Amino acid sequence: MNPVPVAELRTFVQQVFQRTGLSAADAEIATDVLVTTDTWGVFTHGTKLVYLYTRRLRGKGLSPQGRPRVEREGPAWALVDADSAMGSVSSVFAMELAIAKAATAGVAYVVVHRSCHFGAAGYYAAMAASRGMVGMVMSNDVPSVGAPGSLVPILGSNPFAFAAASDTQGSMVLDMATAAVAGGKVAAAAAEGKSIPEGWLFDKEGNTTTDPNLFAKQQGAFLAPMAGPKGYGLALMIEILSAAVSGSAMRDKVGMWAHQPTSINTDHSHGFLVINPAVFLGSDAFAGRLDDLFAGIRREPATAASGGIKIPGQIESQKQQEALEKGIQFPDEVIRMLRVAAEENQVPLPTFLS
Amino acid sequence: MNPVPVAELRTFVQQVFQRTGLSAADAEIATDVLVTTDTWGVFTHGTKLVYLYTRRLRGKGLSPQGRPRVEREGPAWALVDADSAMGSVSSVFAMELAIAKAATAGVAYVVVHRSCHFGAAGYYAAMAASRGMVGMVMSNDVPSVGAPGSLVPILGSNPFAFAAASDTQGSMVLDMATAAVAGGKVAAAAAEGKSIPEGWLFDKEGNTTTDPNLFAKQQGAFLAPMAGPKGYGLALMIEILSAAVSGSAMRDKVGMWAHQPTSINTDHSHGFLVINPAVFLGSDAFAGRLDDLFAGIRREPATAASGGIKIPGQIESQKQQEALEKGIQFPDEVIRMLRVAAEENQVPLPTFLS
Repeated sequence: MNPVPVAELRTFVQQVFQRTGLSAADAEIATDVLVTTDTWGVFTHGTKLVYLYTRRLRGKGLSPQGRPRVEREGPAWALVDADSAMGSVSSVFAMELAIAKAATAGVAYVVVHRSCHFGAAGYYAAMAASRGMVGMVMSNDVPSVGAPGSLVPILGSNPFAFAAASDTQGSMVLDMATAAVAGGKVAAAAAEGKSIPEGWLFDKEGNTTTDPNLFAKQQGAFLAPMAGPKGYGLALMIEILSAAVSGSAMRDKVGMWAHQPTSINTDHSHGFLVINPAVFLGSDAFAGRLDDLFAGIRREPATAASGGIKIPGQIESQKQQEALEKGIQFPDEVIRMLRVAAEENQVPLPTFLS
Repeated sequence: MNPVPVAELRTFVQQVFQRTGLSAADAEIATDVLVTTDTWGVFTHGTKLVYLYTRRLRGKGLSPQGRPRVEREGPAWALVDADSAMGSVSSVFAMELAIAKAATAGVAYVVVHRSCHFGAAGYYAAMAASRGMVGMVMSNDVPSVGAPGSLVPILGSNPFAFAAASDTQGSMVLDMATAAVAGGKVAAAAAEGKSIPEGWLFDKEGNTTTDPNLFAKQQGAFLAPMAGPKGYGLALMIEILSAAVSGSAMRDKVGMWAHQPTSINTDHSHGFLVINPAVFLGSDAFAGRLDDLFAGIRREPATAASGGIKIPGQIESQKQQEALEKGIQFPDEVIRMLRVAAEENQVPLPTFLS
């Protein structure tokens, strides 16, 4: 396949979302989150997922007309009812709210419940960074990851993101699962008939296994937590800060957004923390301090093979530049799923898919 | 050695601290942080360190009469100047402030600068938990941990702690370094003449090494970050949320509290975040939800070898119970360092040291 021009991808995805009844404004948000993620090269969380979202929008488990609303709030916090709107729509709403509150309160924590899969956590953290603030984003999900000693999955791969922008040295965007490896990588190995390294996956006897099919075909295998007890601990923290605090579904009560009937609300929950460095440092000092920090790290000696020490998110940012100039070089699987999205939503195939 | 009764240890450490000019109240705080950490079995951060703190207190790099004070503040945040007081004294002050602010504001972030080594981060997070809130604690430190591809240490082992209390199922206390392994474990292996597993340590050519002496004897080796880029990313986040945001020393500008002249202020910085679940859920619901969450996890099937799935901090809590009943069974090294503390501060050896 040729590279896909970003503008054409955007027009297409926007059109698909609007076919399901999303307003133009909501479709634009949902499109921007997924297309931006693709420009980073993070295809597991990009427009490949459109067909799954639109199935759920048509099934009404996701509400095309859903409107996130503030249920309770104070100057530095809010509880948001997502009203089963697209996870991206509720998450952009919540992060904007947290940024606005932190602008005056200095810090803000906004929790969202009655939501669904929200895509790449880093997108929302980066929103705070682009406003000169610091963003932290978390979400729970259906259990797919074990705890030390467990024979079954205990918690979701509960993602964690953090972002902050320097003045001239770019942004830091950390976006990580608390699993040792993304479930998508295991599924990809299964699809390609490859085995996986030890330590990624445990079978239902609790032994590490190199057979990705035990996970991909739902035969009781589950992902290892990142760094053992530490990743498990962080995932549990995220479960508490998103689901326990908001009254949302916890652990196995969360719905499987990609697999369960499209008519049910999955009741995912998310947390959005924003800290405004200006209150501590005075208005302009923070971005300059990050210049010193990031430039200092980049100057440190590194192996030739590494090509220098990176700031988290730097590789994704470079890929984005390239994508905006030359288009996105998608794996075949993404193209296939985009065709499914076009067909299932009766949108004519755009040039790049035909 | 026989087990050391906790009350006798407490009296002794309090006495040692007061000999350096600490007030009875400050000595009590410093003592409680270190003795509590010992009851958890976390001897690397307990009273073993007393002689190092008192050397610095006598050298005035730590100020015995230092008084942490609020430099700037709002209803949901504060910047605290530690005034070179004991890290534990400033940290208890900051966490109390964050708890008081979160009680009304719902969330609070307090940053401390001009501080020093603060001991076990989990102690302060647990303070929030004991008040029915959720606590998150971070600190920077002198670089000892590499970044992916680096040939030198880039960031400290920057600890991260999180705590929350259930009603009947105990507390979760997560307390972790962002290094793959604690430097103390590498030092211990060196002292015992043992080799260490691959992946813990890198030499100055950037290769993994099994020789702990390259680290213990400061021959250019450095610790691996936890889970590679993820641990590096978390450590950088902590550097930003403690040092960059507060105007404190970053990375190699931080002083080595255990090694550098005892007359210098090391300028460590810490961050204390508190979230008050009652604002989201109503006053009583949170601890009950954590009962469901923790009990549900404990009911899940586990390997016989694991003895069941643990909630983070559970092992430390069990050790604490045992320590309070039977005394603390210290390794010889701790006893030796306690004797040094007694001698250097001219405090008579208590029974348990003689």
